[in-house]
Amino acid sequence: MTLPTHADVLRAAARIAPHAHVTPVLRSRSLDALAGCELHFKAEPLQRAGAFKFRGACNAVWSLEEAEARAGVVTHSSGNHGAALALAARTRGIACHVVVPEGAVAAKLAAIEAYGGILHRCAPTIRAREEATVRVQRDTGATLVHSYADPRVIAGQGTAALELLNATGGLDVLVTPVGGGGLASGCSLALSGLAPACELLLAEPAGAADTARSLAAGRPELDFVPDTICDGLRATLGAPGFELLRAYGARVAVVEDDDTLDALRLLSSRLKLVVEPSSAIAFAAVLQQRERLAGKRVGVVLSGGNVDLGTLAQWIR
Amino acid sequence: MTLPTHADVLRAAARIAPHAHVTPVLRSRSLDALAGCELHFKAEPLQRAGAFKFRGACNAVWSLEEAEARAGVVTHSSGNHGAALALAARTRGIACHVVVPEGAVAAKLAAIEAYGGILHRCAPTIRAREEATVRVQRDTGATLVHSYADPRVIAGQGTAALELLNATGGLDVLVTPVGGGGLASGCSLALSGLAPACELLLAEPAGAADTARSLAAGRPELDFVPDTICDGLRATLGAPGFELLRAYGARVAVVEDDDTLDALRLLSSRLKLVVEPSSAIAFAAVLQQRERLAGKRVGVVLSGGNVDLGTLAQWIR
Repeated sequence: MTLPTHADVLRAAARIAPHAHVTPVLRSRSLDALAGCELHFKAEPLQRAGAFKFRGACNAVWSLEEAEARAGVVTHSSGNHGAALALAARTRGIACHVVVPEGAVAAKLAAIEAYGGILHRCAPTIRAREEATVRVQRDTGATLVHSYADPRVIAGQGTAALELLNATGGLDVLVTPVGGGGLASGCSLALSGLAPACELLLAEPAGAADTARSLAAGRPELDFVPDTICDGLRATLGAPGFELLRAYGARVAVVEDDDTLDALRLLSSRLKLVVEPSSAIAFAAVLQQRERLAGKRVGVVLSGGNVDLGTLAQWIR
Repeated sequence: MTLPTHADVLRAAARIAPHAHVTPVLRSRSLDALAGCELHFKAEPLQRAGAFKFRGACNAVWSLEEAEARAGVVTHSSGNHGAALALAARTRGIACHVVVPEGAVAAKLAAIEAYGGILHRCAPTIRAREEATVRVQRDTGATLVHSYADPRVIAGQGTAALELLNATGGLDVLVTPVGGGGLASGCSLALSGLAPACELLLAEPAGAADTARSLAAGRPELDFVPDTICDGLRATLGAPGFELLRAYGARVAVVEDDDTLDALRLLSSRLKLVVEPSSAIAFAAVLQQRERLAGKRVGVVLSGGNVDLGTLAQWIR
């Protein structure tokens, strides 16, 4: 397993600069007062395709040699990564194949197709998904870009933390959500070269707390059935994520979904930002850890805002 | 009547700089594609107190001589201006009195009080409001800061357009909502000195279209009963607003509330921003005028995001 490095994050930043947004860093004195610390929110809902996922996808797509690139890319994802990879592939004018399980949310599939992605449907099992992915690779020669285990993806996600560090001039603590670990470990790489004393706090749903268990045990503990509204955080921690987060000494805050929804409402009403639960959880972790964070400069990566409006309406009403 | 000038907007920008946010300018390629033009959204929901109103209030408060300031400020407003003035007064450590009609929305009054404003209740008639305001002025010596007719307020609101012009490097068209005309006429002043060829397009609800009628008639035509969900735009056009907008040659797009709600949903789902209808109307005007705006560089002032979450839930579900 090749692990990406801080230098890879710097290279990713240069590579994606022509395509990705440098998203704003938002402040709110009322949320600062509520949390008892100085908050700097990295607003990735304002990233292209509505989530940080575009960073990693874009870095992967533009890392390919010309000959590789011509055969396109492939991934399996029914969520933000599929749409982000389709959009990234479009920025290079290459094909993007996305293997999706039958029964996936129609709106997500429509987003992938809207960005020009080619859908390949398969039965909703891991085995069917892997077979379908291998088949597409064999038939098309497309390069696999895994949503959180690919080193190019991890390095790309780290650019969010790089920009946040540059915009704020330094942080005591960085808070990110953790699911498969692509964003979290990419951020650990950004910190390692620029701000190695900065604490990395991971926000993880109680119903999918494999990262908390794995880091506590010192080995991957991935056997669980996810049960959380944070649909972007249901994946199990990837092997590179585990190594990088352990090496950095990341801590985990385990958060209940009800607290995540409270945080989502606060971000809607005070920060005026539409976020998905998988993002709001990072702010919920801040509120949970307010004693430890008191008076500190805290960066919070709000990772994405792709949420069905009807569902959002139910959460905020 | 003393009308403010472009120079007053420049002075306001310097005066409010230590207190107000320079709000981000947001882009969305999907909304560009939908509208057929290049959109630059000035995100005033991310301003302090959640709306552009803080700019004008802050400029008024910090324009006062020290002796005047000590007696505080007073206004009548049950909406964003009351809260903004209370917060602005707090930045200078002076009192802010807000005359509010019985029956005003409790959440808005709570916001005014949360920023330290002192509420003075009166009967819900214009006469009672004016009498109460005069009484507070007489009893306290506070300076009246009207929400859209005060030249200091108008100049302050213009800083939103100033920042947008600076951030974009130039625009063909600027779109703002129009109610009492403080924001719209402040923006006309910003344009007049920096980009006099830029078209100014005002978005006005069909149920409160006094600006459209007044500019068409060449004289104030203010006799109407407002009927619109755009609660920030129910006021009649103020005298300075009328003069400045007529002088600039502003055009008006009259927008139905249903189209405003469609725009609000698009801004929620694509731009990930919580906006109030009084802001969304500016994007609705863009969609209505898409033929005229085709291919142009268009600035859109999204004026605020102070909306009750329960009501927002009804609009987006």
